[in-house]
Amino acid sequence: MAIKIGILGYGNLAKGVEAAINQNADMELVAVFSRRDPSTVTIKTPNVPVVSVDDIKDYVGKVDVMVLCGGSATDLPKQTAEYVKLFNVIDSFDTHAKIPEHYAKVNEEALKNNKVALISCGWDPGMFSLTRLYANCILPEGNDYTFWGKGVSQGHSDAIRRVPGVKNGKQYTCPVDAALDAVRSGSNPELTTRQKHTRVCYVVAEEGADKDQITKTIVEMPNYFSDYDTTVNFISEEEFMANHQGMAHGGFVFRTGKTGWNKENNHVIEYSLKLDSNPEFTASVLLAYSRAIYRLADKKDFGCKTVFDIAPALLSPLSGDELRAHLL
Amino acid sequence: MAIKIGILGYGNLAKGVEAAINQNADMELVAVFSRRDPSTVTIKTPNVPVVSVDDIKDYVGKVDVMVLCGGSATDLPKQTAEYVKLFNVIDSFDTHAKIPEHYAKVNEEALKNNKVALISCGWDPGMFSLTRLYANCILPEGNDYTFWGKGVSQGHSDAIRRVPGVKNGKQYTCPVDAALDAVRSGSNPELTTRQKHTRVCYVVAEEGADKDQITKTIVEMPNYFSDYDTTVNFISEEEFMANHQGMAHGGFVFRTGKTGWNKENNHVIEYSLKLDSNPEFTASVLLAYSRAIYRLADKKDFGCKTVFDIAPALLSPLSGDELRAHLL
Repeated sequence: MAIKIGILGYGNLAKGVEAAINQNADMELVAVFSRRDPSTVTIKTPNVPVVSVDDIKDYVGKVDVMVLCGGSATDLPKQTAEYVKLFNVIDSFDTHAKIPEHYAKVNEEALKNNKVALISCGWDPGMFSLTRLYANCILPEGNDYTFWGKGVSQGHSDAIRRVPGVKNGKQYTCPVDAALDAVRSGSNPELTTRQKHTRVCYVVAEEGADKDQITKTIVEMPNYFSDYDTTVNFISEEEFMANHQGMAHGGFVFRTGKTGWNKENNHVIEYSLKLDSNPEFTASVLLAYSRAIYRLADKKDFGCKTVFDIAPALLSPLSGDELRAHLL
Repeated sequence: MAIKIGILGYGNLAKGVEAAINQNADMELVAVFSRRDPSTVTIKTPNVPVVSVDDIKDYVGKVDVMVLCGGSATDLPKQTAEYVKLFNVIDSFDTHAKIPEHYAKVNEEALKNNKVALISCGWDPGMFSLTRLYANCILPEGNDYTFWGKGVSQGHSDAIRRVPGVKNGKQYTCPVDAALDAVRSGSNPELTTRQKHTRVCYVVAEEGADKDQITKTIVEMPNYFSDYDTTVNFISEEEFMANHQGMAHGGFVFRTGKTGWNKENNHVIEYSLKLDSNPEFTASVLLAYSRAIYRLADKKDFGCKTVFDIAPALLSPLSGDELRAHLL
């Protein structure tokens, strides 16, 4: 019997979840729930309804796991604790500093309602966090390094677009190769913010705008750009539309550490992702963890979980025997 | 209260475990158990006894986790199922093809005796297996690639030393850079054995031996060398002792896969290890998992486990709150 998946929202992440369901034979999409008028939302999966979020209660008992595809800024801080009253839920809440608060709220409601929730799933937080945890446990004495990119930072792109004279803009965060190499060498370098990442901006200026002023405003912007080496490239609207709509992203997690009676041996653990589509990859992680949620709910192991709490075998459609024979 | 660790054996892996205990504040070494006469074995930890394996029963109830440091060829197939009758145990059994058989035997005894066993822990099997499992669950449609090295292959070094005229020899398995790059590009290459790894041999020949014949015998040796591009370097005994005693190793695990409604997006997951000391790193993994075994035993979750069955949080000395706040 297939695991019945519901999707709340229908942005890029939700579309990624919809596509990923096709790649998991043990899952089926029950419905997409939207705050918009359902008649205005067309999904790709044939014969699956779009339902107003106002009617979501009608699906209690018909959805095994509800995948919450809202944003971390305003949607998820409300939605996850709210919908876990009705469904087992999973989200990709990625405001690292607010995870403990989010966890506490969601855990309380999950336990009260005999549901399973899994928060902050994806790749960072998510697979990167797992790499950090495993590597820290193996090498208790060492250093952690995380690099992001090359990929678009939404917050920095928004900041560019607020600069007077800017019609459109995208900002790419790029890891610095020399810093990656220094970390890989095992030399445990201390790296400043500026040494780790550069910021590359593509800007469409309004006609007659002062480009030098735009550049100066961007590169000197505190918090966002002033601590980085920032490059501003002015391009045409056509080039912007043709070359800067992609959603590629990725990054690197390292832990370097020492072992031995006299700490004489160095080790380098490196994990990296190179993703053509950030939302589709995140969606694929969410679906793998939805399988685990389904199984935990089946065992009545209720409450709020994170990727740290989930035994890896629970993610796989294969049996323990198959995993030991083929993947161990 | 510290987790009480026993070590069975005192080879390189065991010495790595002994050193790693110093890096984990919540663990203490209770005793090293040896098949040799204890008076001939000197360990590094002060005030800890070396005990004959004949007296190991005296330590029932005094050791929380027994770390079995024997070899996979002859020791562990007997030891793990034997000692799990007395202790919670962990091993690094790495004969991939025989894992299901080993699991079945150990699981039966573990359940019968209310003990926890964890088998096939380390980096391959171990951390590499985990990477393969997570990546396969996230990207169900894709390809797996594993590369080893640069590092010494014990089996191939033994094969060299059996060649007539060879006094001493070491064999390094080296991943081919072009193959690594092809995989990293996301092009999903089909790679032959020869394209993935080269084998580099360092040989000390006996005086007057026919070096051409030795080279020919090595490079044409079926199973071991004939499917690879093999280089044979003749060196002096002094150079051999000076430069080829190291235990560095490492490798790479990749999964490349596609997502999207039309499978239009590529993703590359890469995990790599660069290890100065293969046995010390393996030992460090064993100790992190010993913490998990201790906790499972405390919850009476008995039986034989693998890394696939262990929730990552169980490896860490930190609390759930701390992990969520600092590592997620």
